Amino acid sequence: MSWIYILSVIGTGVFAISGVLTAIQKKFDVVGTLVIGFVTAVGGGTLRDILLGETPVSWLQDRNYFIAIVVAYVLTYIFKRQTLEYKKSMFLFDTVGIGLFTIIGIQKAVLMGLHVEYCLILGVVSASFGGVIRDVLTNEVPLIFRREIYATACFAGGVVYVILSRLFATDDINILISIATVIVIRYFAVKRQWSLNLNV
Amino acid sequence: MSWIYILSVIGTGVFAISGVLTAIQKKFDVVGTLVIGFVTAVGGGTLRDILLGETPVSWLQDRNYFIAIVVAYVLTYIFKRQTLEYKKSMFLFDTVGIGLFTIIGIQKAVLMGLHVEYCLILGVVSASFGGVIRDVLTNEVPLIFRREIYATACFAGGVVYVILSRLFATDDINILISIATVIVIRYFAVKRQWSLNLNV
Amino acid sequence: MSWIYILSVIGTGVFAISGVLTAIQKKFDVVGTLVIGFVTAVGGGTLRDILLGETPVSWLQDRNYFIAIVVAYVLTYIFKRQTLEYKKSMFLFDTVGIGLFTIIGIQKAVLMGLHVEYCLILGVVSASFGGVIRDVLTNEVPLIFRREIYATACFAGGVVYVILSRLFATDDINILISIATVIVIRYFAVKRQWSLNLNV
Repeated sequence: MSWIYILSVIGTGVFAISGVLTAIQKKFDVVGTLVIGFVTAVGGGTLRDILLGETPVSWLQDRNYFIAIVVAYVLTYIFKRQTLEYKKSMFLFDTVGIGLFTIIGIQKAVLMGLHVEYCLILGVVSASFGGVIRDVLTNEVPLIFRREIYATACFAGGVVYVILSRLFATDDINILISIATVIVIRYFAVKRQWSLNLNV
Repeated sequence: MSWIYILSVIGTGVFAISGVLTAIQKKFDVVGTLVIGFVTAVGGGTLRDILLGETPVSWLQDRNYFIAIVVAYVLTYIFKRQTLEYKKSMFLFDTVGIGLFTIIGIQKAVLMGLHVEYCLILGVVSASFGGVIRDVLTNEVPLIFRREIYATACFAGGVVYVILSRLFATDDINILISIATVIVIRYFAVKRQWSLNLNV
Repeated sequence: MSWIYILSVIGTGVFAISGVLTAIQKKFDVVGTLVIGFVTAVGGGTLRDILLGETPVSWLQDRNYFIAIVVAYVLTYIFKRQTLEYKKSMFLFDTVGIGLFTIIGIQKAVLMGLHVEYCLILGVVSASFGGVIRDVLTNEVPLIFRREIYATACFAGGVVYVILSRLFATDDINILISIATVIVIRYFAVKRQWSLNLNV
């Protein structure tokens, strides 16, 4: 088991937490909350696999994703109050998750021999469309369309990864640097926005 | 032609009626109503087939589904008033439909060799995502996420089916018992909710 | 390069413009606007390809669609004001686009050996579901469901194409006549509606 695989399972769980928290705020029942958690966690990868024709979609073939989502779901309910307190660690994991899913999406698209711009698009789709589907199902205009550095950070991390992988064969290090790029961009974006909000 | 196939065609028609009625209430025109009827009827099975990579999706290969939907559409317009009177028979057919589609979804997933938890998920997806897509397209928060025993009844029927099919080879009888489970759960859920509403 | 291919690339760009304009009106940021433009442009063809199992979906294999969308996106921002003035040419291109995508959808479905009614459905899906997805993502009830001759015009053009292609082998001319049908129906529909609006 590679560290990338382990991180991708953890990342799926963290995505699920974000979906479950959204659904709880919307007063969905336990079933609806589970569905939203599931869809948020696997939505982006599912759309990527469907567009590429990689079916049955990848999570259907690996029960660890199922376990990660159910564990995330149960833990979110048990530690509902604390989850909000640990927002910072959640933010970190979530950002690692989107960085990682961006790169997994790019890698799959590269293997299919797609043009580089489509590889980048599929990276961003992998990382961000779970959140889009979550927002559509909860009847919100997707967050990503309104004030989001989210997709931009993924895209930038993706560009860094594509450039690095053309220069160096050190895939693990390339991935780490790319994820770091996503984290840094998102961190400063949130920081800046926060101070902007203070000025209002 | 097996009784399962016949029921699945009838079930598709009944699903279409529920979509058409929703669209009429929303004052959609005749085209929009037809689209919503269609999408409600085939949406769940379509998502299941796409996730599994069973393409062209199954309804595209069998014109009986098309005929069932168009007949349902025309009949709903003609008997608009009566449709509401026959709500009880509609409820029965609809519940038979979701029970049956749950099991068809499970069977397809079992044939692909998926883990049992994913088989159950695909069963519930087959039965309930037509309604989810209907609600998204009519700009509602999907009913299933708010107060619905719908998905739970499907899931319970699916569990019964999985257990029975590991114990007995009598597939037809297993299916009948599983559908009966769905009907009983949904019937009591609606009953109970009805009396709860009376208390308000 | 056939004239059909060239028109389909231009049509993709024009679809993108309609998405970008919608997103600008909704005050989406530059990223959201690009996503909506992209999804509007490729959404219908993507759904068609996924239903048929033609994957990776067609636009992923041809970077000209990417270029058309990005060019449309940039031009729409630069000529935002003028775009509204050139509404008539836009309307014409958009109508040519939906006519053409209807026929491309039908042709692909015919090649897969589907029944004629499903070929027509896939034609309409190709032409109109980009707009449906645009409306869902911007949290609107899809325009097509409320007062739209859009789908009807596609359907009529599709019927004309199916009939002509059974009578004559002159595919290019059949396509031209079918697109003209779409244009004429949509033109008169808009005209009539316009005068109706005047009466209000």
